[in-house]
Amino acid sequence: MSTVAFIGLGNMGGPMAANLLKAGMTVRVFDLVHTAMQTLAEQGALVSSTACGAAAGANVVITMLPAGKHVKNLYLGSGSEKGLLDVVASDTLLIDCSTIDAQSAQLVATQAAKNGLEFMDAPVSGGTSGAAAGTLTFICGGSDTAFERAQPVLNAMGKNIFHAGGPGAGQIAKICNNMLLSVLMVGTSEALQMGIDHGLDPKVLSNIMKVSSGGNWTLEKYNPCPGVMENVPSSKGYQGGFMVDLMVKDLGLSFEAALLSNSSTPMGALARSLYVSHARQGNGHRDFSSIFEQFAPLKK
Amino acid sequence: MSTVAFIGLGNMGGPMAANLLKAGMTVRVFDLVHTAMQTLAEQGALVSSTACGAAAGANVVITMLPAGKHVKNLYLGSGSEKGLLDVVASDTLLIDCSTIDAQSAQLVATQAAKNGLEFMDAPVSGGTSGAAAGTLTFICGGSDTAFERAQPVLNAMGKNIFHAGGPGAGQIAKICNNMLLSVLMVGTSEALQMGIDHGLDPKVLSNIMKVSSGGNWTLEKYNPCPGVMENVPSSKGYQGGFMVDLMVKDLGLSFEAALLSNSSTPMGALARSLYVSHARQGNGHRDFSSIFEQFAPLKK
Amino acid sequence: MSTVAFIGLGNMGGPMAANLLKAGMTVRVFDLVHTAMQTLAEQGALVSSTACGAAAGANVVITMLPAGKHVKNLYLGSGSEKGLLDVVASDTLLIDCSTIDAQSAQLVATQAAKNGLEFMDAPVSGGTSGAAAGTLTFICGGSDTAFERAQPVLNAMGKNIFHAGGPGAGQIAKICNNMLLSVLMVGTSEALQMGIDHGLDPKVLSNIMKVSSGGNWTLEKYNPCPGVMENVPSSKGYQGGFMVDLMVKDLGLSFEAALLSNSSTPMGALARSLYVSHARQGNGHRDFSSIFEQFAPLKK
Amino acid sequence: MSTVAFIGLGNMGGPMAANLLKAGMTVRVFDLVHTAMQTLAEQGALVSSTACGAAAGANVVITMLPAGKHVKNLYLGSGSEKGLLDVVASDTLLIDCSTIDAQSAQLVATQAAKNGLEFMDAPVSGGTSGAAAGTLTFICGGSDTAFERAQPVLNAMGKNIFHAGGPGAGQIAKICNNMLLSVLMVGTSEALQMGIDHGLDPKVLSNIMKVSSGGNWTLEKYNPCPGVMENVPSSKGYQGGFMVDLMVKDLGLSFEAALLSNSSTPMGALARSLYVSHARQGNGHRDFSSIFEQFAPLKK
Repeated sequence: MSTVAFIGLGNMGGPMAANLLKAGMTVRVFDLVHTAMQTLAEQGALVSSTACGAAAGANVVITMLPAGKHVKNLYLGSGSEKGLLDVVASDTLLIDCSTIDAQSAQLVATQAAKNGLEFMDAPVSGGTSGAAAGTLTFICGGSDTAFERAQPVLNAMGKNIFHAGGPGAGQIAKICNNMLLSVLMVGTSEALQMGIDHGLDPKVLSNIMKVSSGGNWTLEKYNPCPGVMENVPSSKGYQGGFMVDLMVKDLGLSFEAALLSNSSTPMGALARSLYVSHARQGNGHRDFSSIFEQFAPLKK
Repeated sequence: MSTVAFIGLGNMGGPMAANLLKAGMTVRVFDLVHTAMQTLAEQGALVSSTACGAAAGANVVITMLPAGKHVKNLYLGSGSEKGLLDVVASDTLLIDCSTIDAQSAQLVATQAAKNGLEFMDAPVSGGTSGAAAGTLTFICGGSDTAFERAQPVLNAMGKNIFHAGGPGAGQIAKICNNMLLSVLMVGTSEALQMGIDHGLDPKVLSNIMKVSSGGNWTLEKYNPCPGVMENVPSSKGYQGGFMVDLMVKDLGLSFEAALLSNSSTPMGALARSLYVSHARQGNGHRDFSSIFEQFAPLKK
Repeated sequence: MSTVAFIGLGNMGGPMAANLLKAGMTVRVFDLVHTAMQTLAEQGALVSSTACGAAAGANVVITMLPAGKHVKNLYLGSGSEKGLLDVVASDTLLIDCSTIDAQSAQLVATQAAKNGLEFMDAPVSGGTSGAAAGTLTFICGGSDTAFERAQPVLNAMGKNIFHAGGPGAGQIAKICNNMLLSVLMVGTSEALQMGIDHGLDPKVLSNIMKVSSGGNWTLEKYNPCPGVMENVPSSKGYQGGFMVDLMVKDLGLSFEAALLSNSSTPMGALARSLYVSHARQGNGHRDFSSIFEQFAPLKK
Repeated sequence: MSTVAFIGLGNMGGPMAANLLKAGMTVRVFDLVHTAMQTLAEQGALVSSTACGAAAGANVVITMLPAGKHVKNLYLGSGSEKGLLDVVASDTLLIDCSTIDAQSAQLVATQAAKNGLEFMDAPVSGGTSGAAAGTLTFICGGSDTAFERAQPVLNAMGKNIFHAGGPGAGQIAKICNNMLLSVLMVGTSEALQMGIDHGLDPKVLSNIMKVSSGGNWTLEKYNPCPGVMENVPSSKGYQGGFMVDLMVKDLGLSFEAALLSNSSTPMGALARSLYVSHARQGNGHRDFSSIFEQFAPLKK
């Protein structure tokens, strides 16, 4: 049975680590926030006083951090401080589940390879509810063997596990997907509102487009127009779900990626500007489907 | 058994009328192109020398014309020439399957109502292959009784029959859907190309996004990247399918609709400009998924 | 000395007619609003009880109306009602100063020509202050002789008088100009705000860009950032000036023009969507430079 | 009389250094390309075998390099290699004329300050012709004293010398200006083409808009429509001038800046995508006003 080190126990990492415990694995945890570790300790995790302490001797290390710089600092060390790559055993599998830029992921993977270690980027989608339910999607970038070895732990936390390609490919695939998602959300919002402006019932219009050539994930699972679907953020005042600020972060990653590859992304770039304006108007903490309100008629 | 008058026997109208014949209906046809009528005559249709001649005495009249002005002229007459509304029997059901602006549809519907007639707009999607196979989608705008009465004829030509609302609602719903479709196509194209630019395999990326939150009709049925799907236009040199010029026409209708309702449609408007530029570069007769080439790297 | 009929005495038309009186011309006025006529009567105008009454016998007719349909109805008549073309003398010069679509202008010009009359479209820019000061810009579409004949009356109301081309060209030129203006305003706003976001002083940045390759009319005359220039709307709470709703109207005309000519206008179309959203958020009656606020950081 | 070290003698740096010689200054030069140094030596410059050799003992150091990483490596050193900051005398004024990201400029400025040195970013505009003629524009970021001290050398190379603010402000101001320039160029191109599509003469339309509210630098100095102005790239097959690839680079810098400050730049982001597509279609080495061709009608 595996010993897994889990570093980063936020809204996503916490429930993910809990699912590893439920699957019977030995889990050592570390987070800068002490209460986050205590919650896991109550479920059976072993608390470590440092990240390197948690990782040393583990079979698998999983990290879940906010941004590329945190991932680089943790794995590579910084200044005189040692990094995870310096302390783990040579047969340890390293899996970073953070959503970060592909360059940082590739840098860590390259350095890991120099140390004879396997590193895989495996960003997730599915949100906090998916993390809790163990139904996350993992989009992996790394070698075939790394992907193979990661199956048991990823299966304990998720449902769909994709292999996008070599190092960094998981991040790129996730960035492409989320850029496209933002376009679907904005495009669907403006189409629905134009229908409403012409007197159509948004439920009827949604039902028609869902099974026609306008069909897309947002119509299927996440309709942005209040009252069309139950139990989605738009019907709960745009609370919960995936925050505008997080979409802005992901669209920032897609911007960076487009710069690096000199790609033309007119729709994605427009979606970013609209989401940034939306966030600046005070909607950063609301669900990202609230972009629908940017198209709504003036409330009387 | 119904007698149906079918006016407008182009690439779509011809096979639609043929399906009515196959269903055992009596079909009187009219088209300005004589050979188009002969083709139908060989399948059992009765040829009329005028549109009014075809319509007089029919139980149902179906029209399939290029633009709003043709529909208005045909139904309302022009100058001294009589229109269909002047010649049909009072219990005739009028169905216009053209894709036109909603205002024209509403104008004809209003005038028909004044004459005690029921008129329904019922634009189609599904292309020439759907017309031939009898698997078209009809998006209808009109009264409940008109929608009810139209079922037998529409079922003989199509598979999905939607009731979007009152007069004009069929056109609006189709315009909203096709505007959204153009956004899906452009957004999917730029996301796929950005992935390719970063070394991803477009098949792998497509498969991941298709079942993730980027999922949409174009990934499911109509991938714009050559080689990802078989039997779609992108794998056949962008031949066949739905022409760029037709998408430009539909996006023109969405522009007009947005003007009338003072709607903000940033994504749809951007898609229109990109498609117009694409058409101006000589791609008007290619399939609309060829917009993918606007993002492709310079061919060496 | 000329007798001029002036029809349409709104915020623009009223002061324009007053300037004709100041220049010593005989002016017959008509407006649906009686008080508007009285104001002019006090300045020496002759009040008519109908538009046709004002126009009959005048040497020059000037019209200033809200939209194309009003212009068409007034000149061509409607139903049994006579139009101006039916009542004016054969040597009357017809000048429409409304900002309308080019098609309507061309239709009236064609009909006027059939009646042996000269009609010229001459939309203005310069706003209510320019109308009062007699410093308007006129952009004319019509024959050389019409343009020549119009000089005395236009000079009495304006400063710059351009001949854009044949019938309708005045409208097209104005529509192109105002579409470009909207792009300058949005582009300048986002550039200024990005500078501010990085700590630059907007006055300093404006001064630099004004004389560099970013130089444009908005930096020169109409800076959208509060506090940079005195006596412009941005420094007066975005009051006065050119209303967002009027920019939305003009961008609607540019949309229509782009549709007719199948032109690609990505920047203009994006500006329209941003202005429509801005209007829908309750800013329709504020100055159009208030679009700057769409880019501002969240107010704490 | 000053001794100036000039490092980076490309298309811009070469003629700039030559102007310092013409002004009677002692100039030590370094470039990786030996022939570039020889050209300057023939005009009286002293050739150095290393950048540090040129800089040691100079009163002023001027650098003109392609990107931020080159600037950082040169000033800060890399690995065991010393940087300029390690070798120059404590009263040396450091001026970087490269167009790079503001972060790199600020990093060098901060490190220079730690060493008791003054560093100023001073990106230029005006192109190779301005460099040769000594009429460049400099946009400076640094302290008042640095700005003051730099006047003699900058005046020998340029005409307009702006002080945008503290360290990095010169880069930000230039980035904002060039982003706005790209918007002016695209917006003017689409407006002109829409006018042409409606039959207007682009010269007439340009003349009208130039003095109206659409007026901007591109209409004044750099009309993108062939035949409107003489001696601009559009009238010479879009040769010479400012390359599309360089505009793409500058728009990349504006993208990065917008990411850092979380700014919404819809027009600038759209211009970038259009320019990237244009470059990918094979236009990277043509003048940036060739974007006009993206709107042109299909050539028959």
